[in-house]
Amino acid sequence: MSDIVSPLAPKVQPALPALQGVQLATCQTGVKYQNRADLMLAIMNPPATIAGCFTTSKTASAPVEICRENLTDPIGQGKASAIIVNAGNANAFTGKQGQSSAQIVGDTVAKALDCPSSQVFMASTGVIGEPLDPSQIVSAIDGLIKSATPDHWSQAANAIRTTDTYEKQATITANLNGKTVTINGIAKGSGMIAPNMATMLVFIFTDASLPQNIAQSLLTAAVDKSFNAITVDSDTSTSDTVLLCATGQDDSQFSGTSDPALNDFNQALQNLTLNLAHQVVRDGEGAEKFISITVNGAENNAAARKIGMSIANSPLVKTAIAGEDANWGRIVMAVGKAGEMADRDQLSITIGGITVASKGEADPDYKEADLVPHMKGRNIDISVDVGIADGTATVWTCDLTHRYIDINADYRS
Amino acid sequence: MSDIVSPLAPKVQPALPALQGVQLATCQTGVKYQNRADLMLAIMNPPATIAGCFTTSKTASAPVEICRENLTDPIGQGKASAIIVNAGNANAFTGKQGQSSAQIVGDTVAKALDCPSSQVFMASTGVIGEPLDPSQIVSAIDGLIKSATPDHWSQAANAIRTTDTYEKQATITANLNGKTVTINGIAKGSGMIAPNMATMLVFIFTDASLPQNIAQSLLTAAVDKSFNAITVDSDTSTSDTVLLCATGQDDSQFSGTSDPALNDFNQALQNLTLNLAHQVVRDGEGAEKFISITVNGAENNAAARKIGMSIANSPLVKTAIAGEDANWGRIVMAVGKAGEMADRDQLSITIGGITVASKGEADPDYKEADLVPHMKGRNIDISVDVGIADGTATVWTCDLTHRYIDINADYRS
Repeated sequence: MSDIVSPLAPKVQPALPALQGVQLATCQTGVKYQNRADLMLAIMNPPATIAGCFTTSKTASAPVEICRENLTDPIGQGKASAIIVNAGNANAFTGKQGQSSAQIVGDTVAKALDCPSSQVFMASTGVIGEPLDPSQIVSAIDGLIKSATPDHWSQAANAIRTTDTYEKQATITANLNGKTVTINGIAKGSGMIAPNMATMLVFIFTDASLPQNIAQSLLTAAVDKSFNAITVDSDTSTSDTVLLCATGQDDSQFSGTSDPALNDFNQALQNLTLNLAHQVVRDGEGAEKFISITVNGAENNAAARKIGMSIANSPLVKTAIAGEDANWGRIVMAVGKAGEMADRDQLSITIGGITVASKGEADPDYKEADLVPHMKGRNIDISVDVGIADGTATVWTCDLTHRYIDINADYRS
Repeated sequence: MSDIVSPLAPKVQPALPALQGVQLATCQTGVKYQNRADLMLAIMNPPATIAGCFTTSKTASAPVEICRENLTDPIGQGKASAIIVNAGNANAFTGKQGQSSAQIVGDTVAKALDCPSSQVFMASTGVIGEPLDPSQIVSAIDGLIKSATPDHWSQAANAIRTTDTYEKQATITANLNGKTVTINGIAKGSGMIAPNMATMLVFIFTDASLPQNIAQSLLTAAVDKSFNAITVDSDTSTSDTVLLCATGQDDSQFSGTSDPALNDFNQALQNLTLNLAHQVVRDGEGAEKFISITVNGAENNAAARKIGMSIANSPLVKTAIAGEDANWGRIVMAVGKAGEMADRDQLSITIGGITVASKGEADPDYKEADLVPHMKGRNIDISVDVGIADGTATVWTCDLTHRYIDINADYRS
């Protein structure tokens, strides 16, 4: 954890309310950090419906592989009794020993809670490639279970931090089948990944009652528009994990994800995931500016996303914004390198609501001085129309500053 | 041009010999720079066979579009009478006016040399989106033609520089059909692209006699293994251009690119392009380390290239190397995010000849202290085996340092 809080951090963090069926506990294991909690346990009793989205990395960590298997395990029945998360060691690229360590932790939690191992979900974040000795975690589990309470949300959000400069929490309510339900979420993430000390982990809990297939579909769609639409440094963690637990126990049924009864909940879930995703970007390593990029006029939505990500990941665009320079030529470059269809002679670019380029050349009315106040602000808005069809997407990123280099070029201690 | 020469620059630049049929001239137009030449003209008399490779950008510059058309123009017959290059303004994203400016320059050269316009090739490098007034270039052309000489290679290499910290030249000889031929090349490039002030331009000349289709095939293959295997910042210029002019006038015929008579020339061309490509990386913006990345064991060569580029473009790998930190966990991450097949449990990584990871985990004999001397050096060698099949590729890049941010976050003056 850094002493410097990101200048883009929210001014206040919400107080998350207790949620029926969820208890949380944290403690300090000493696996890596001193003088801070680094282990978090969430207990769902009775077992909650669970849905999950994971990294696309081909070198995924042992905990990610176990979560994936648990989701479809017939004994687990798509339910979670616990989520256990350690910070400081990613347990990734640790071979058979790493898999065995993760399994030992899961089995110990399962035994203590008297549930199937496949109902214990887990995540690890920290250095890649260092063997994880499970003993310090295993010996902490009984104490965690004894100390679990419904109100330790802030402690949980803090225990999963690595290079994060602030804890990330969000809460929202929604109407579902005539009842008000709550959705709480905590997240960690600072580099899109910094394997040295980071990764994106998100844990969302709701007291709604949802069938597993509905929960999974809603989560996948919400993640696509939020966590999959942000980038800090284009790098992909071996450990990225988003889990949604629904603790409600009545047997609500829905005709599908487009059932109107789900509309309000779905919108709330999307708002919450977007809120947490933006918080991750706002804590991007070294970030000084929060950048929103909207692409219109692309061949389709996927093409728009790809063009948006090409702009968002361009070191030249990101350094120009760090320098408060409205260097829109670099945006043109990034559109071009995306490889998606773009009509150069119809391309238009707006920054902070001011048209800088239209119909493939500098806008005759554009004066760079008009953009200076926007470029000096904390929030930079870029909009691009590539003039082909109706595809649209919005993505978010942060600028690339000296502090990113400082954070990531440091020797490991 | 920067006052600070890259610490990775070659100690000496070769003196390029005169080449039958090529004359060079440079001058100062004042389009952007003061007190330096910024316009280069190469005259080929009689017209030379020409081959070209260009940016894949969907927002290519006007000069790139004209070169592409000229290559296949029936009047031009695959021949070049001149190449004209200006530095300081990329004439990219300048709309119809930009196209017209480029055409005016080309037509003026063609008229002065009494050749078809489609035998005049061109390139522009510099700021994107600023209209290029052709008048300063047009008025310089007569003077350039009068002052052209066979020995102005170094002046030509200097006139095309933008953010380059040194001029880039290479020369090599080869045996072709029993005769010794020479290949001269000049290049510019510093960011893979920095549209503010950069791009990669390469001009290669040989006194060999080559049919156009053979010249094109040899150039395409050589570019694939050299300029297409390097990256500074993952960004793609709107203007990247590589041209090969063969001035020989006898009507040598070859059975194809695999004709043994071409072997020596082909090898020499590959050596020369690799030499120039490495010089571009060695002048990468802010570069302190030259990084070679070899990937073995991939599904095929294309997969190996993609994994290599994923490592080479990872900001986290590049900052770790800048920090002289053998953080191989970040290499694992970059392998995973490439999306190509990799057997995590067979993955091995070697740095500076020392095995750091094998069979999917930290090598038991690896001691980080052993790697310190290599990490402190200028040349970093990374080798990865992903344990799938026989695909192999080598790519080159440089580290990501504070100076990259300095150079690219500066306000434009």
